[in-house]
Amino acid sequence: MPSCGWLLLALFVAALTGNTIGVVAYEQTERNCSLSPPYLPSTAVNTTLQLKKLQEQMLLLNISAYIIPGTDAHLSEYIAPRDARMAFMTGFTGSAGTAVVTQTKAALWTDSRYWVQAERQMDCNWELEKDGGWGWGGGGDCDYRTCWLFNLRGNDIPYNPFFYSYTLLTMDEIWLFLHTDRMTDELRVYLNASCNGSLCVQLKSYDTVRDYLKKYVAQPRVKVWIGTEYTNYALYEIITPEKLMTSSYSPVLTTKAVKDDTEQRILRDAHVRDAVAVIQLLMWLEKAVPEGKETELTAADYVNKCRSKQKDSRGPSFETISASGPNAALAHYSPSEESSRRLTVDEMYLVDSGGQYLDGTTDITRTVHWGTPTAMQKEAFTRVLMGNIEISRTIFPSGTRGVNMEMLGRRALWEVGLNYGHGTGHGVGNYFGVHECMPSFYFPHIFQKPGYYKENDFGIRIEDVAVIVPVHTKYGHNYLTFDTVSLVPYDRKLIDTSLLSSEQLHWLNKYYETIRRLVGPELDKQGLHEEKDWMLKHTESFMMSGSSVSVCSSSLTFIALAVALLHNII
Amino acid sequence: MPSCGWLLLALFVAALTGNTIGVVAYEQTERNCSLSPPYLPSTAVNTTLQLKKLQEQMLLLNISAYIIPGTDAHLSEYIAPRDARMAFMTGFTGSAGTAVVTQTKAALWTDSRYWVQAERQMDCNWELEKDGGWGWGGGGDCDYRTCWLFNLRGNDIPYNPFFYSYTLLTMDEIWLFLHTDRMTDELRVYLNASCNGSLCVQLKSYDTVRDYLKKYVAQPRVKVWIGTEYTNYALYEIITPEKLMTSSYSPVLTTKAVKDDTEQRILRDAHVRDAVAVIQLLMWLEKAVPEGKETELTAADYVNKCRSKQKDSRGPSFETISASGPNAALAHYSPSEESSRRLTVDEMYLVDSGGQYLDGTTDITRTVHWGTPTAMQKEAFTRVLMGNIEISRTIFPSGTRGVNMEMLGRRALWEVGLNYGHGTGHGVGNYFGVHECMPSFYFPHIFQKPGYYKENDFGIRIEDVAVIVPVHTKYGHNYLTFDTVSLVPYDRKLIDTSLLSSEQLHWLNKYYETIRRLVGPELDKQGLHEEKDWMLKHTESFMMSGSSVSVCSSSLTFIALAVALLHNII
Repeated sequence: MPSCGWLLLALFVAALTGNTIGVVAYEQTERNCSLSPPYLPSTAVNTTLQLKKLQEQMLLLNISAYIIPGTDAHLSEYIAPRDARMAFMTGFTGSAGTAVVTQTKAALWTDSRYWVQAERQMDCNWELEKDGGWGWGGGGDCDYRTCWLFNLRGNDIPYNPFFYSYTLLTMDEIWLFLHTDRMTDELRVYLNASCNGSLCVQLKSYDTVRDYLKKYVAQPRVKVWIGTEYTNYALYEIITPEKLMTSSYSPVLTTKAVKDDTEQRILRDAHVRDAVAVIQLLMWLEKAVPEGKETELTAADYVNKCRSKQKDSRGPSFETISASGPNAALAHYSPSEESSRRLTVDEMYLVDSGGQYLDGTTDITRTVHWGTPTAMQKEAFTRVLMGNIEISRTIFPSGTRGVNMEMLGRRALWEVGLNYGHGTGHGVGNYFGVHECMPSFYFPHIFQKPGYYKENDFGIRIEDVAVIVPVHTKYGHNYLTFDTVSLVPYDRKLIDTSLLSSEQLHWLNKYYETIRRLVGPELDKQGLHEEKDWMLKHTESFMMSGSSVSVCSSSLTFIALAVALLHNII
Repeated sequence: MPSCGWLLLALFVAALTGNTIGVVAYEQTERNCSLSPPYLPSTAVNTTLQLKKLQEQMLLLNISAYIIPGTDAHLSEYIAPRDARMAFMTGFTGSAGTAVVTQTKAALWTDSRYWVQAERQMDCNWELEKDGGWGWGGGGDCDYRTCWLFNLRGNDIPYNPFFYSYTLLTMDEIWLFLHTDRMTDELRVYLNASCNGSLCVQLKSYDTVRDYLKKYVAQPRVKVWIGTEYTNYALYEIITPEKLMTSSYSPVLTTKAVKDDTEQRILRDAHVRDAVAVIQLLMWLEKAVPEGKETELTAADYVNKCRSKQKDSRGPSFETISASGPNAALAHYSPSEESSRRLTVDEMYLVDSGGQYLDGTTDITRTVHWGTPTAMQKEAFTRVLMGNIEISRTIFPSGTRGVNMEMLGRRALWEVGLNYGHGTGHGVGNYFGVHECMPSFYFPHIFQKPGYYKENDFGIRIEDVAVIVPVHTKYGHNYLTFDTVSLVPYDRKLIDTSLLSSEQLHWLNKYYETIRRLVGPELDKQGLHEEKDWMLKHTESFMMSGSSVSVCSSSLTFIALAVALLHNII
């Protein structure tokens, strides 16, 4: 208890002075189950009651262990609040996790992004099992392939334009199972729903999918193809083994991951408009932060508003990560009223945000400093940037897997003994999930590595969306490279050009030329003259020279294109 | 048939002129089962009889499919002639493969190193199933851990100092099963074999291992730990599930892979003497080849002889790959009387060889040109070298897996659309298997990639043994790098220094300084003055400048050390 009292006092002092005593404040926000009685932060949820109820039910039904997945029936990491069963049972609201309850124990597995969050949200009924993996891009929009197949969108899930549905596609018929009461007449016409032919979509109630599948499977000489990775057990168990054909991933998923020419063209447009919103944010912060009134929350609101004003905007593609100082060391932190930190010229700031547009989905991270970065911060930022550039400019044969290349994002950090504890990329949908479900065989972005975040200090991340494009090589065919479509300059103040190779500087200057060429006219069109000047100033060509700052993570988000993936799939 | 006659004629012309008509000569050496009657080269083995006998036996015993592994009962890729069952049945003598026979079909699976060889050696009874993987370092000396455990060597297997044995090690007893009639009195004393205590080795007959294991397992409260990856079924089936404890790899294997200080020190010595032998070969070839009398076979003999004269030599560590011109495009080609090519100043030459020494096992590949290389040959060689250097100089955190780094060996080739179709490294034993059994989880050197060899033209490979050593970094701990212990200069004529980065040139110059410092005194000691001068000439410092040659493969052979692997294993 004395140490507890001391901890509370420390926080009080911190609040008075307006400064943080980093380490102390952070220890305090997490539970400590080894104390007696245990220490629980105010953010912890008391789960005793729901756990007791569940265990009673289990006893009655003679069930020894009950698994509560973090996903919904569609095995998606993006779920509607009504499906947040894991959060209800455990208190933990992270996007990845699995809980298991027995009569004597309750445990939650989650990956390193969420360990701190879990320690803050769970009470001592729960054991935290630290999952070695890192989940970015692991789950994604996997089971919402129906939406893609019919080019339809809905709003059953926050940040993700999905609706609950199943499709049964045969050689002669198309059955679409969904909540038919929500359908407009216009949609019925679009789906050609008033007929029975092989090009007519037969609309069926969402709840009847099992019955229809059962009936279909009962027919002689039918075979049903499913992807085992993302089909739920309720449907899987209906298909008798001799009628079952499986692949790890449904052919719809692997096709969806490969963007066609139209998708490529329109997503580039979306990224130009998205860059305008992020440039608006960065320019505004540069002016507003020194005045001392802005916080992580007001910054997140600002960029969300900027995006909402762009053409064809459909809201953010995920909850904006707006993190200052030590908060940025938590890779998946989003500000709340309690945690929101005041932005100052003394701390680095990381903003990881994205938008849904009718023509694309964006996801971009920039890290900035409005004062004077330390030498270590500058060095770490530069090395993260070097990693980002090395991936962007690399040439690789078609069929290369992500796991074989992602060390390029780390190598410059490794050189000085720094690293980051998460994967280096994920797929992005087109007006779809910002974490596209990408078969890990084709693009494995999950790596089992220890994390490196400078805890209680700061966090760095650079994230760009890139399109994989064919490249001409001197001797070979079927070689590819990345074309970055995110179009926002990096913070010049944090770049030590003396560390960059001439190839890296060349890439950077070329990228800045592209920003000028593509975003310039859009800023003009929107009459954003001050933003245009800001953009021009921040995209000036670099000359050779240099000096240094501090750590974390480089993340390049990939959009894989036809050329890249078809070769893998076939 | 007409095309067959023409092919034979073409070969005849080639023999007359002393030149090769590459493509034609090569087509001719492989079977063509789609012709009627099929075309079979003289190297193909007629397997009709043995296949018929096997299928008769299978019918009698009601067996529908029979698997013939390429390995022996110890699951080793290195086998004694008496265990060459796959070769007997199929005609194929490659070191990696699996055959399956049914009543209607006979098929052989092997990886891309051996596809050409299989087409040359098999008749049309056999279907060749092209295995996507590449096997270097995949099998290795896995089951001969007993030899390592007792620090004993034998000679049951060519090129590998192993003897057949099993060990049953308990808390109180050590049982060693081997052919006891071969044991000397000296060895019995060394093994403390005349007592029964916990430090006495009880020698048992090789054939009784199953009986002893059965008796041991029958005892109450015992548990047997085995590595599932490399224990044969005959032993595995004896251990009842509740008494079985498994890991993928036996703890002996994972420990063996990590060289201790003594092993590190002595293996470096072995590499110095080995370098003397390779330098003798390269100097001799430089003078002898222009005279026109040397062949792949005489060169292989020469280097084998040079090695045999070195202190503590115990013969070559594998059959020397001595390959000129198009023969080098076959990664695992070894010359025979029929295939041996005359060495000329017009072709590149690749020599991949190694020695067994009491203090170490070596494995080194150098590619040279005694005339004027083409621009493409020079460029390809330089880019292979760049890959070798990039791996050698990279700094990485302890626990990094090979699969995450090996693209560094390919990147410079990818840049111009070149690649190679095999892994980039394998473990090496200490006076042990040249392909050390290294758990692929810790060091996965098998990659599924399409191959790039310039078929019927030439092949390039650079291979060095490197020791993994701790390195001091600015911010981090537990970072590692490679220290190359193979000490033979690369062919200067093939290096286009204009392609090298200043870091790469710096590495190269430092490496050459190391060669001078370590090999120089040894050459002096052995009175090899001409060789010393040759070495000095070939290790002169490089300045910035440059121009280019053609393709294939860079291979860096790793010796993993304590620091690197212990962290993984725990």
